Amino acid sequence: MIALDAFGGDRAPEAIIAGAVIAHRQGVPVVLVGNAEKLRGKVPHGLTVVHSPDTVEMDEPASTPLRKKPESSIRRIFELVRDGQATAAVTCGHSGAAMACALHVLGPVSGVTRPPLATVVPRKDGGQLVLLDLGANVDCKAELLVQFAVLGDAYARAVLRVERPRVGLLANGEERGKGNEQVKQAWDLLDAMALAERAHPGTSGLHFVGNVEPLEAMRGECDVLVCDGFVGNVMLKTVEGTVEVVARILKEEILRRGSDRFAAWLLSGAWRRFRQRTTYDNVGGALLLGVNGVAVVGHGRADARAVASALRFAHGCVLAGLVPQLKAQVGSRLVKP
Amino acid sequence: MIALDAFGGDRAPEAIIAGAVIAHRQGVPVVLVGNAEKLRGKVPHGLTVVHSPDTVEMDEPASTPLRKKPESSIRRIFELVRDGQATAAVTCGHSGAAMACALHVLGPVSGVTRPPLATVVPRKDGGQLVLLDLGANVDCKAELLVQFAVLGDAYARAVLRVERPRVGLLANGEERGKGNEQVKQAWDLLDAMALAERAHPGTSGLHFVGNVEPLEAMRGECDVLVCDGFVGNVMLKTVEGTVEVVARILKEEILRRGSDRFAAWLLSGAWRRFRQRTTYDNVGGALLLGVNGVAVVGHGRADARAVASALRFAHGCVLAGLVPQLKAQVGSRLVKP
Repeated sequence: MIALDAFGGDRAPEAIIAGAVIAHRQGVPVVLVGNAEKLRGKVPHGLTVVHSPDTVEMDEPASTPLRKKPESSIRRIFELVRDGQATAAVTCGHSGAAMACALHVLGPVSGVTRPPLATVVPRKDGGQLVLLDLGANVDCKAELLVQFAVLGDAYARAVLRVERPRVGLLANGEERGKGNEQVKQAWDLLDAMALAERAHPGTSGLHFVGNVEPLEAMRGECDVLVCDGFVGNVMLKTVEGTVEVVARILKEEILRRGSDRFAAWLLSGAWRRFRQRTTYDNVGGALLLGVNGVAVVGHGRADARAVASALRFAHGCVLAGLVPQLKAQVGSRLVKP
Repeated sequence: MIALDAFGGDRAPEAIIAGAVIAHRQGVPVVLVGNAEKLRGKVPHGLTVVHSPDTVEMDEPASTPLRKKPESSIRRIFELVRDGQATAAVTCGHSGAAMACALHVLGPVSGVTRPPLATVVPRKDGGQLVLLDLGANVDCKAELLVQFAVLGDAYARAVLRVERPRVGLLANGEERGKGNEQVKQAWDLLDAMALAERAHPGTSGLHFVGNVEPLEAMRGECDVLVCDGFVGNVMLKTVEGTVEVVARILKEEILRRGSDRFAAWLLSGAWRRFRQRTTYDNVGGALLLGVNGVAVVGHGRADARAVASALRFAHGCVLAGLVPQLKAQVGSRLVKP
């Protein structure tokens, strides 16, 4: 059962319920968590509801569910995971509050100090790129970037089934010595781990490929791309922005001439499939990596389809055995490089 | 006359000469700078050559033209500008060496300590976004971000003819308090300048609109977007990478079915115009903003068309009177906020 916060997100609870219905039909077990009074008459037959009276609003502090609203839905979903009544928690609500609850209620995996947010971006070569941190930790020291590398590596192995993930450090150039201060220091630490691995296989298990630029990462040069939460957030939102601008420009150019309009009509199928592959609703959200449970934070603007994607994303992590594998792999590696 | 380094770039001198020919035909006055011996027989009638025997290779240190090769073409182009024999300098060679030469030979505009690299990115609303720094200064203190804001503002006024440019600070959220340490500090400084301007118009002339996320910037929320060179480089290369991935996905989807292939054939005109608008060759390069002269650093992989774009970009800055306007506007504003 995946615990879904019915009152998180700009379009809650309608879009959240509709998303739960879609995912439920696709075989994802879902339980809606929220004020049962307010949900009455809105939840179709077959979906269960766990009552949790309070709701955290977007303009409240991230600590609200921990301090002032212990009975809020955004907190309850993580308690259900902690108590073994749910396998994963999904919310499209207040992301700061979600991260605070996940960390406080579920606790970090041993060795992890500040869990990052991770997601998966499609690469040009058809593969998938794990990108982290997406914004959970804005200012990061080198040691934290190393943690992200180990967590991203474990995710790629467990969920994406990449045998020996190539881990890169996001930088403004491929050469050693490129990057800001933190990146340069993280390079040294990760390089030492990779050297140790080459000398004594099994030591760190990390296949560090050095600095990687965004273009090269998107072309397929690595499987895991590590950066601080500020840079990762900028990168992810730049991808979203560029897709929007590109779609707009292309549409303008297609509509410029009559014959192109005819072609566009013929093309509509390809166009729809293109939007399906590039809209980031399909990824479904960001995973808080390194807590004792599967915790997915969806987009605040999520519609029903995006909510369903987030549920499928969480379900995939559960089926892959992400958390047990994280614990096994991370524990040994984060006890000193 | 724009001084063009004939031996800078992966495809030099052939692509450089071909680019000079294109720009020359379009009315941009160009002089090729490089080893006349090696250029013999390659330069068509009508283009002049200034002899400069040495070439700086990509694997040499950035200080090479200043210390070891004073007669290199990448240094000579800036000397021609300094001596009034050229109006602008363009190179697609070693960008570190180019920046070192520009700064050393031309010198910074009074008040500027570390000139940033700036470029222009198309926005969704049809406008243009000035993005800086693109990588000249990787680690930046808040005061430096303020310098970039003032320089970007002056560029938008002088070259893009924006009357009152909206200057934003690139961040991971719109609210005050978002951003990493430097961004938060720069926010305070820029806000104080904007407040002073509102109270006493003419004080700073800066219309600071606060934090802006990449998606919003690309939608048109600001005219100038300020960030450190690490983040700016990542952002620019993410745009490039995304355009590549999007083009690839769309192509795959178009070729999936026969009827779409027919549509694609009909669409080829729109496709070509789309590539022309999105390929970053069209922007032509990055401008080193805040030195006493127009200095454009083109892409190392530039082909003839990209070289021609870089020349037009530089020519546009000259025609707009960029440097005199920069001096007038920046001097007064950077003497204490």
